[in-house]
Amino acid sequence: MLLEQINQPEDLKRLSVEQLEQLAAETRQFLVEKLSITGGHLSSNLGVVELTIALHYLFDSPKDKFIFDVGHQSYVHKMFTGRKDQFDTLRKYKGLCGFVKRSESEHDVWEAGHSSTSLSAAMGMAMARDLKGESNRVVAIIGDGALTGGMAFEALNHIGHEKKNLMVILNDNEMSIAPNVGAMHNYLGKIRSDKHYVRAKEEVEHLLKKIPAIGGTLAKTMEKLKDSLKYLLVSGVIFEELGFTYLGPIDGNNLPLLLETLKQAEKVEGPVMVHILTLKGKGYTPAEKDSFAWHGASPYKIESGQMLKSAGPPMYTDVFSNTLIELAEKDSRIVAVTPAMPGGSGLLKFAKQFPNRMIDVGIAEQHAATLCAGLASEGVKPVYAVYSTFLQRAYDQVVHDICRANLNVIFAIDRAGFVGPDGETHQGVYDTAYLRSIPNMTLMMPKDENELRHMMKTAVDYDDGPIAVRYPRISGLGVSMEEPLKAIPIGSWEVLRPGDSAVVLAVGPMIPIAMEAAELLAKEGVQLRVVNARFIKPMDDAMLHQLAKERLPMITLEEGTQMGGFGSGVLEFYASQGVYGLQIKIIGIPDYFVEHGSVPEQRKEVGLTVERLVSEVQSLVPRKRQHA
Amino acid sequence: MLLEQINQPEDLKRLSVEQLEQLAAETRQFLVEKLSITGGHLSSNLGVVELTIALHYLFDSPKDKFIFDVGHQSYVHKMFTGRKDQFDTLRKYKGLCGFVKRSESEHDVWEAGHSSTSLSAAMGMAMARDLKGESNRVVAIIGDGALTGGMAFEALNHIGHEKKNLMVILNDNEMSIAPNVGAMHNYLGKIRSDKHYVRAKEEVEHLLKKIPAIGGTLAKTMEKLKDSLKYLLVSGVIFEELGFTYLGPIDGNNLPLLLETLKQAEKVEGPVMVHILTLKGKGYTPAEKDSFAWHGASPYKIESGQMLKSAGPPMYTDVFSNTLIELAEKDSRIVAVTPAMPGGSGLLKFAKQFPNRMIDVGIAEQHAATLCAGLASEGVKPVYAVYSTFLQRAYDQVVHDICRANLNVIFAIDRAGFVGPDGETHQGVYDTAYLRSIPNMTLMMPKDENELRHMMKTAVDYDDGPIAVRYPRISGLGVSMEEPLKAIPIGSWEVLRPGDSAVVLAVGPMIPIAMEAAELLAKEGVQLRVVNARFIKPMDDAMLHQLAKERLPMITLEEGTQMGGFGSGVLEFYASQGVYGLQIKIIGIPDYFVEHGSVPEQRKEVGLTVERLVSEVQSLVPRKRQHA
Repeated sequence: MLLEQINQPEDLKRLSVEQLEQLAAETRQFLVEKLSITGGHLSSNLGVVELTIALHYLFDSPKDKFIFDVGHQSYVHKMFTGRKDQFDTLRKYKGLCGFVKRSESEHDVWEAGHSSTSLSAAMGMAMARDLKGESNRVVAIIGDGALTGGMAFEALNHIGHEKKNLMVILNDNEMSIAPNVGAMHNYLGKIRSDKHYVRAKEEVEHLLKKIPAIGGTLAKTMEKLKDSLKYLLVSGVIFEELGFTYLGPIDGNNLPLLLETLKQAEKVEGPVMVHILTLKGKGYTPAEKDSFAWHGASPYKIESGQMLKSAGPPMYTDVFSNTLIELAEKDSRIVAVTPAMPGGSGLLKFAKQFPNRMIDVGIAEQHAATLCAGLASEGVKPVYAVYSTFLQRAYDQVVHDICRANLNVIFAIDRAGFVGPDGETHQGVYDTAYLRSIPNMTLMMPKDENELRHMMKTAVDYDDGPIAVRYPRISGLGVSMEEPLKAIPIGSWEVLRPGDSAVVLAVGPMIPIAMEAAELLAKEGVQLRVVNARFIKPMDDAMLHQLAKERLPMITLEEGTQMGGFGSGVLEFYASQGVYGLQIKIIGIPDYFVEHGSVPEQRKEVGLTVERLVSEVQSLVPRKRQHA
Repeated sequence: MLLEQINQPEDLKRLSVEQLEQLAAETRQFLVEKLSITGGHLSSNLGVVELTIALHYLFDSPKDKFIFDVGHQSYVHKMFTGRKDQFDTLRKYKGLCGFVKRSESEHDVWEAGHSSTSLSAAMGMAMARDLKGESNRVVAIIGDGALTGGMAFEALNHIGHEKKNLMVILNDNEMSIAPNVGAMHNYLGKIRSDKHYVRAKEEVEHLLKKIPAIGGTLAKTMEKLKDSLKYLLVSGVIFEELGFTYLGPIDGNNLPLLLETLKQAEKVEGPVMVHILTLKGKGYTPAEKDSFAWHGASPYKIESGQMLKSAGPPMYTDVFSNTLIELAEKDSRIVAVTPAMPGGSGLLKFAKQFPNRMIDVGIAEQHAATLCAGLASEGVKPVYAVYSTFLQRAYDQVVHDICRANLNVIFAIDRAGFVGPDGETHQGVYDTAYLRSIPNMTLMMPKDENELRHMMKTAVDYDDGPIAVRYPRISGLGVSMEEPLKAIPIGSWEVLRPGDSAVVLAVGPMIPIAMEAAELLAKEGVQLRVVNARFIKPMDDAMLHQLAKERLPMITLEEGTQMGGFGSGVLEFYASQGVYGLQIKIIGIPDYFVEHGSVPEQRKEVGLTVERLVSEVQSLVPRKRQHA
């Protein structure tokens, strides 16, 4: 096994190209085996084995900076930089992170999780290098999907203008682009990186400048030629227009070709884009056949490629999916909008049933939001299905285009709260704080999957502005589904369990925790009232007034940042009403970034647990009342 | 005067092309006269007179949708849609809005203020039209600057893919592009919109598909041709690649040519981009000569073009500007980053002195933020100078790229708080709420322009993560500047005026209001302690503990949204400490969008006034203490 000898990039530089190819095969085998137990981003990593080998073979990390966009395709990089032995802990609590992570290694120079940031980061590092008078390479590795994100274009626009030395590797693994791959493309790619060609190009340009004016037939002929030739280049011409030298596309799983092309790219002055075509899932047949399903894989059986899924109640996402179809069947105004997450957001079934009412805009959260505003301004009812963490990208559009204009846009915010193994870059724990402070916004979170259904009905019926329902990345509680769908009165909370010792105002998945705590407390004579605070905004003012009269100790419990969250809303309410002297304890996520692990581990770390709630209630409730 | 007869678009349709040209001249005269008194966006509106005439002449608003990007170039549109008589109230309280505004007219179908949203909105409207089976036109008017905003690219990418009927007018008014304008460009623009040309293009494409493979010399020749020809088209080729039919560029101040081109554009199936070149400030010599200074004009003398500026203390922006230069002279790590606002952010002098350390990325707030992260990751100290309202665009990058990685990025947040005549789209009133809830962020606001200087020193000295200083769009207080620059201890507040009846915790420009209220209250025996809460995060825990011991009534006073703002932070602190029973009143901006007017008018509307504070203190302080 060659792989056993590879612990640092230096070890790799000693190998021959033939040995590198053997290393690629061993690397794939390693990944397929390890991930069959841990799960993880299998297909994208299988696609970049040769690329990662080539980068570490030719260049000098960490002096040279490798910036992996999104960062979930950095497993091979981790293997070659001293972390091979930690793969049993991949994406586990206190284990190896599933993304690039600066605290893990000096070779991890940039962190991400959200897409399309690598070009901006690379430009920052290239500018810093030049300011400091240093000379290292800066290489950004970005997928074709991530390139559609607006900030990637903002960066291209800037990079092309400034002409810094900087290499962008466009890792293109879309099946759809396969037909464009051919001898002509490889050939064009090769001659474009050829020095003779650069000189020829300059000569032609020089000649053309001497032609004073072209009119009539000649212009038309040139015009025709241009248009026809343009189609031979397809993507490259855009990057050339934006100031890049464009090489490719080439087969990015062909190691000798890749090495040759990267060597040529290195010689280019100014920004260079190397367009490589890679096969997602390469080397593992099940993943090659369905790279989509294998993007984020659960543990699986290697032989059969069967993923191991836990049985249990439906995920909130699935309930959302089915309910949206049910609603859309009756209401033709409904359309679904997703920024490149039709699968993750549960919209594939919807797309099949309503192909004309399903809008996938690609990785483009900002455009998706303002598109919804445009649709709503003309009477359509868009449902923007998005993960909490990615909605952050559209914050300004939510404020400026949707809430300010008070348009009827429905937000289906998936993966709200802790997200588990994706960790700190993906936690959906800020949306309550950032949405609650925007005027005109209504924000709900259901206590179970049945309530999610009725909240969606509530949202569709609501015609007074934007309305959002947030739900977690977990299974429902297995409750039965009530029919028919009924709208819930806006701003209404419900008491789920009576009690007159103390009150917990709990949001969404915190409710089962509150119910369990109440059960335990009841055994010691403490009667904890459990309120389903299903509307985060507006709140149930009448109930809040009632609670103020009772003057019971209160606890707010939410899986979201404590700063500016739901609990703050409760405090603000009483302050605004001039109600002072209430004992209110706020429990949420403290002010730091919580890393990867399972959701229960993350909750335990920050104290969103039954034990914590029991102890907080005990400390708030006077002894006499505890034994009443 | 023809203009007198034009009250609705129908009136305009009756005129001949010659009369339309006369109307253009009269429109310019009207704008120059009216704006000399009110101020406003003069130069961009002078540039689009012919365009606006052409749109209303050829198309049918409001059935056809005109979507003005940013919307400050909609004055002419307002004149032709029944609002000519309201120009005396332009940008004044309860007067005509300086942007497109749906509540003003059925012809205003889309609102903006921030840039780059028009293409997404247009796509939404076009999709809604097709879903409803209607057939109106949708026309987006976007400037070349706004096109660099990432969300505009996200929209282009989607529009080009979907092939909806939709017209984009690229209103290109950069001086820098002038050399590209010429006979060849006009000519190419004309033939491209010609039907014969479209057929010819199809034929060539068809032919090319039949060529099985090209190699050797022929390939090289074709390659050379392509590259040379590409430069004859410049911008158009990108849009064509993205799926648009591209027409232009043409002279957008040439009305007959504009009418002809728009007529041709109308016949195009699918998305069409009309690239027009207009002269900002056209028809008013001072504005033509310096379209930049005349972008947002103060009232001026028509003859001399002299703008009337009020004398007084320096603006906060100017103090920022001078201090940054002073700091940069001593610290070579400092670079300034701006998203297309070098003037507004006060960075022109800095750019002159440190051309290599000034980075203007264009309208690209997201890229700017992550670029700062990249710079900071390599030891450079970026100062991201940005308006509060535009920083909203980079919310995700602030969370994910800067705060999560805890990088040393300095935010200079200008125009925080009310912004006056720009109104609701530009209010800088959300940043406290959205920044405060992000871990690792430090947030300051100075009491006066002298403190701003020391806060900048504080920020430069700080090496523990991101730090922001926010300051308002107003003049300083005229205080003297203390030398030398000294860092302020992080998280420290200061008592500006003693008092033991009540305490006001005031932020930034609320401090003079608090001081004046304290003065008035003192006359009736109420001693209001005034605290400069200069650190919004972290707060001065020691002082908060001390205040809790004194149990005085407290008021928090800030020019920011009350939901999740500084006041909430104070409430959260006491809740977290288990300190109950304090009387704390939160005063901030209530939960709605505040429209245009002067800053004092906006403050008065929401109760950020001396009178309000006096009365709140009176109601909190027990009578006996009032007369103590």
